[in-house]
Amino acid sequence: MKRVYNFSAGPAILPEEVLKEAQKEMLDYEDSGMSVMEMSHRSAMYQKIIDDAEKDLRTLMHIPDNYKVLFLQGGATTQFSMIPMNLMKHGVADYIITGAWAKKAYQEAKKFGNAKAIASSEDKMFSYIPDVKHLNISDDADYVYMVDNNTIYGTKFYELPDTKGKVLINDASSCILSEPVDVSKYGVIFAGAQKNIGPAGTVIVIIREDLIRKDIKTDTPIMLRYDIHAENGSMYNTPPTYGIYICGKVFKWLLNLGGLEAIHKINLDKANLLYDYLDQSKLFFGTVEKKSRSLMNVCFKTDSEELDSLFIKEAKQKGFDNLKGHRSTGGMRASIYNAMPTEGVKALVEFMEQFEQKHKK
Amino acid sequence: MKRVYNFSAGPAILPEEVLKEAQKEMLDYEDSGMSVMEMSHRSAMYQKIIDDAEKDLRTLMHIPDNYKVLFLQGGATTQFSMIPMNLMKHGVADYIITGAWAKKAYQEAKKFGNAKAIASSEDKMFSYIPDVKHLNISDDADYVYMVDNNTIYGTKFYELPDTKGKVLINDASSCILSEPVDVSKYGVIFAGAQKNIGPAGTVIVIIREDLIRKDIKTDTPIMLRYDIHAENGSMYNTPPTYGIYICGKVFKWLLNLGGLEAIHKINLDKANLLYDYLDQSKLFFGTVEKKSRSLMNVCFKTDSEELDSLFIKEAKQKGFDNLKGHRSTGGMRASIYNAMPTEGVKALVEFMEQFEQKHKK
Repeated sequence: MKRVYNFSAGPAILPEEVLKEAQKEMLDYEDSGMSVMEMSHRSAMYQKIIDDAEKDLRTLMHIPDNYKVLFLQGGATTQFSMIPMNLMKHGVADYIITGAWAKKAYQEAKKFGNAKAIASSEDKMFSYIPDVKHLNISDDADYVYMVDNNTIYGTKFYELPDTKGKVLINDASSCILSEPVDVSKYGVIFAGAQKNIGPAGTVIVIIREDLIRKDIKTDTPIMLRYDIHAENGSMYNTPPTYGIYICGKVFKWLLNLGGLEAIHKINLDKANLLYDYLDQSKLFFGTVEKKSRSLMNVCFKTDSEELDSLFIKEAKQKGFDNLKGHRSTGGMRASIYNAMPTEGVKALVEFMEQFEQKHKK
Repeated sequence: MKRVYNFSAGPAILPEEVLKEAQKEMLDYEDSGMSVMEMSHRSAMYQKIIDDAEKDLRTLMHIPDNYKVLFLQGGATTQFSMIPMNLMKHGVADYIITGAWAKKAYQEAKKFGNAKAIASSEDKMFSYIPDVKHLNISDDADYVYMVDNNTIYGTKFYELPDTKGKVLINDASSCILSEPVDVSKYGVIFAGAQKNIGPAGTVIVIIREDLIRKDIKTDTPIMLRYDIHAENGSMYNTPPTYGIYICGKVFKWLLNLGGLEAIHKINLDKANLLYDYLDQSKLFFGTVEKKSRSLMNVCFKTDSEELDSLFIKEAKQKGFDNLKGHRSTGGMRASIYNAMPTEGVKALVEFMEQFEQKHKK
């Protein structure tokens, strides 16, 4: 069996232990005589799988009792619609535009009400997080929307926006479970699973109960109503059963590691290995403002596109895969999610040093 | 490794060969050094997986070139909304109510226009397919909606409704790929994967291109627009990558068996084994009209609820799992999808014979 260091931005690397367990259980889960893929979602055995997944996520994130945890489908993109459709009561919402995903969410919200872009870092290709201490929050805003970690550019919020008491919505797709979080500061935290949790096709929504409304527009599609999913324990229809099972395994893997406090320390170490090297390199440089640097997606370049391409190509040959930056930014991006082992980052830095030796001026 | 005969209505049994291949490839797909779960959906390797899946499905079903094949999320339930949101041009649609799922689709459609129930078998607990030769089709109907196979009750259409030229929409969730089909007779065929194809969380939509409209309501959520998915090859956002990969393996398994003509013969043999036994049994009886009998879901009872419970319990002990009927019908249901081997049905019939011997009056 060959395994590469997979720096993909998502779908992304999963813990090898998790994959090995899933492999072992593929044809016979816990002596049931069937795969989890083949299991009725109404069976007691599957109910335990989803219940355990929720319980473990609650433990990991210290989710307060007045929040529901939902396992849904449709990716973060479906949340771009569900948030305004379910949460816009007065028809106004404020968006902080820190990247392409925030912008897409904002554009989608405009279909359903008066969505306002109250801050943006688009002027410098989203290479920083704008000032969020002095935001022009709308008086009648139903919520303020942010994207915690910006996968494409490699930035992250280090302080929460001052929402002047308005509900805060957080798309945490690319940083959920990477560090401890105070859930009570948010109205909704949601995340597509395919970056830091599990396979694509599952999205996790953590929502404060009082925000789950029944008095929304009557022509809201049934699958886009939080109340329906909350009342049915994420089983109004058949959920993505196998995906949730893998997510549950990742939660257990994190608990065994020591929870979010422990993984945060590891993530800081991994990111520092890369950023420290970049800061002293004469060939490579980081592309974002230092105080906005993501712990999950480290973006960097040389000053030559040819050299960037050569680096990506040679890296792949050495077993460092998916280092190409997003097409909109160019350069390189190393996504170092929870499941990327420290030795993967160390090996990458060593390879970068060798490459620099060969190509320095 | 233990394997049971799993008669679950869905999520349901998968071909053992498919699961074994997936198991083998779990940590390293085709020497890529990663699991398909970890693979970027934008990679050439994943593009080949989804392209092959589409190609093989087109071959199996002889899908004409003027139909798009979409791999979506949200289950059949999301289609209950997407169909009217995308296809109601004049705001009228006719529904044939042959079960709980047809009824749910009809109720959902009423949110978006004038959905009419033009036929129903609810008077006899959906135990038959109503006359569809002489339907009262609305002059301005944008489509006629049917559910081909009714999982809960065990009925199926043996002739197509006379729609008087209106577009026919078919929810084929529990019978897709069970027999040859003339796709050109339909405007849309859709199916949740978790019965006859693959894991829950993927839904397949086969839609005639001219029905994919751009001039729909501007506040339609982006993920509920067929045009968006069609223009982006099912990759507007991250699709359920692993689920599609398993679907693709099931398509190849069917092609190797000889396609839908071959599996249909096997399915007829399996269903006949059960129905022939039921028709001569003094203890068990089938619960639906003979001419509407499903090939996929065989519903039966004894005349005693206690005996039904005892049968289900003893069957489970012998390795025949998930034979309990739906809570709304009671009794038993043996779902014998494509992946259920003939020997599973033979073994079940033998066990029923033994049970009858013990409990006959």
